[in-house]
Amino acid sequence: MAVRVLTEAELKAAVTLTPESIACIEQAIAALSLRSVVMPPVLSMEIPEHNGEVDVKTAYVPCLDSFAIKVSPGFFDNPSIGLPSLNGLMVVFSAKTGLVEALLMDNGYLTDIRTACAGAVAARFLARPDAHNALIVGTGVQARLQLQALCQVLPIKSAEVWGRCKDKAARLAQDLGQKLSITIQAVDDLSLAVPRADVVVTTTPSRSPLLQAEWLRPGQHITAMGSDANYKNEIDPACFNHLSRYVADRRTQTMTRGELRTALAYGNAPATEDIPELSEIITGHRDGRVSAADITLCDLTGMGVQDTAIAAFARERAEKEGAGILI
Amino acid sequence: MAVRVLTEAELKAAVTLTPESIACIEQAIAALSLRSVVMPPVLSMEIPEHNGEVDVKTAYVPCLDSFAIKVSPGFFDNPSIGLPSLNGLMVVFSAKTGLVEALLMDNGYLTDIRTACAGAVAARFLARPDAHNALIVGTGVQARLQLQALCQVLPIKSAEVWGRCKDKAARLAQDLGQKLSITIQAVDDLSLAVPRADVVVTTTPSRSPLLQAEWLRPGQHITAMGSDANYKNEIDPACFNHLSRYVADRRTQTMTRGELRTALAYGNAPATEDIPELSEIITGHRDGRVSAADITLCDLTGMGVQDTAIAAFARERAEKEGAGILI
Repeated sequence: MAVRVLTEAELKAAVTLTPESIACIEQAIAALSLRSVVMPPVLSMEIPEHNGEVDVKTAYVPCLDSFAIKVSPGFFDNPSIGLPSLNGLMVVFSAKTGLVEALLMDNGYLTDIRTACAGAVAARFLARPDAHNALIVGTGVQARLQLQALCQVLPIKSAEVWGRCKDKAARLAQDLGQKLSITIQAVDDLSLAVPRADVVVTTTPSRSPLLQAEWLRPGQHITAMGSDANYKNEIDPACFNHLSRYVADRRTQTMTRGELRTALAYGNAPATEDIPELSEIITGHRDGRVSAADITLCDLTGMGVQDTAIAAFARERAEKEGAGILI
Repeated sequence: MAVRVLTEAELKAAVTLTPESIACIEQAIAALSLRSVVMPPVLSMEIPEHNGEVDVKTAYVPCLDSFAIKVSPGFFDNPSIGLPSLNGLMVVFSAKTGLVEALLMDNGYLTDIRTACAGAVAARFLARPDAHNALIVGTGVQARLQLQALCQVLPIKSAEVWGRCKDKAARLAQDLGQKLSITIQAVDDLSLAVPRADVVVTTTPSRSPLLQAEWLRPGQHITAMGSDANYKNEIDPACFNHLSRYVADRRTQTMTRGELRTALAYGNAPATEDIPELSEIITGHRDGRVSAADITLCDLTGMGVQDTAIAAFARERAEKEGAGILI
């Protein structure tokens, strides 16, 4: 049985952040409420000796003929030897026979895309439709992608970028300002930038809160996508007292890996029954933003259902182009 | 970064059931007691629509430079369309950088070998050293491999084989009798065969007990390797009342996937503190068999540490032969 192997370059040619890829992830997330999706808990393994960790995510979506097993290693000493911290691959299996059908050697690229797509979906369903000033916290790959994602779903006219490294923030502002034809400014002071923003996306691996409660103002939406592990935290738990609506991508995940973890520890998380999942907002089963003055926060930890969906999407597009080799 | 892809044929040429592969698995299991091995819980996903399931196992072993993520799909309607039920692959990562180093497209072959090796290790450390009559329950791939494994570690002179399908049992007896130069008989009646055996290996996917308590006799050792999921059960829970020693490969796994699960449900499992793990027996931290009259049972559910070890072993041997392609 031939297995198609697709390289990172081939996958980059096949899939970018587009309305189609965003729609693919929106449907996949919605499927969590509409269909009998099976999504087991994330498998995580730490390798403390080498400052590494590895996550394995998967899901079965009944309307898709395949499912992906996504392996994401993160080895945080890699940059010191000239290697990227994040890597990994997706293995695509037939959902009917379990046979391996494709190997997507994407080194984390598809994870970047599906994560940005989830940011677009969260903003589309939770930000005010007139949100036009964005703030991006962080300057990495996701900072760039999340801003591009916002511009696809909201009438963004200007953006600010904050990062620990001012140079990186300035570079991001310059690069994306041209590309997106909006005004982008690198900023020093988060306490001034947060109140100015209609929509804030936090994209850092911070272990201590960056976003403080007193900076929030009515009407804002925040997407917190940086925390995906039980030691990360971008949002001060006190912020939860100001939220009209806290939305989890997956409650069982945000409790242990997302911003909800710290809020639970501080005793000011909403009751479980008051926490909708993003899928329920998309499908209209539960309310997200109900008034223009609401402050909403969406906590994204990244779900196997996104991986299975983007893998199927990428593979189909790459195959149509005849990309890859068969082994 | 080039990734080596090894096919099932190449892996079969590189690794078989030998004293070296058994030693590799023995060391890996022992490492669970001796070193700071990291072995997360198994990730399992069911795909009920297609009578399928998939397990993902992994472990980090400090003395190895790589770790494997092993994906094992089982799709039990496959035989009706001419495909094997079990498939899968192992992905080998650098334990220092998390980069993908090799893809072992083994379709489950290395799982077969490392499982048989664990059977050899269990028998070596728990059966009486003079055990010479074996009984194999089942007629599949593991039935064959487990008998070969026993012959490598015990002075086996004769064996009996029982299976639901008499023809298959007879075929196994004929094939392996010649190969192993021992007397092998296919038998009809387990109730007569069990008392005759010094060592019994159960290798079936049975969902209801095959081995009954009244058939056990002093001095026997049983390896139960068939049950690896929360619906399988080969050993009548009443057998636990007759055991001198119950040994788990991993307590947390046998509680939910092994024979211990049913014994716990029936309330006649040993107390947790009275259950050693196989690693502790190998390293001498805890007692296994202490007298010739003891009845011992080893419950094997299969561990990620075996997968990481056999993957490293297979890859090294295959690379030495220059096998595989680089992608």
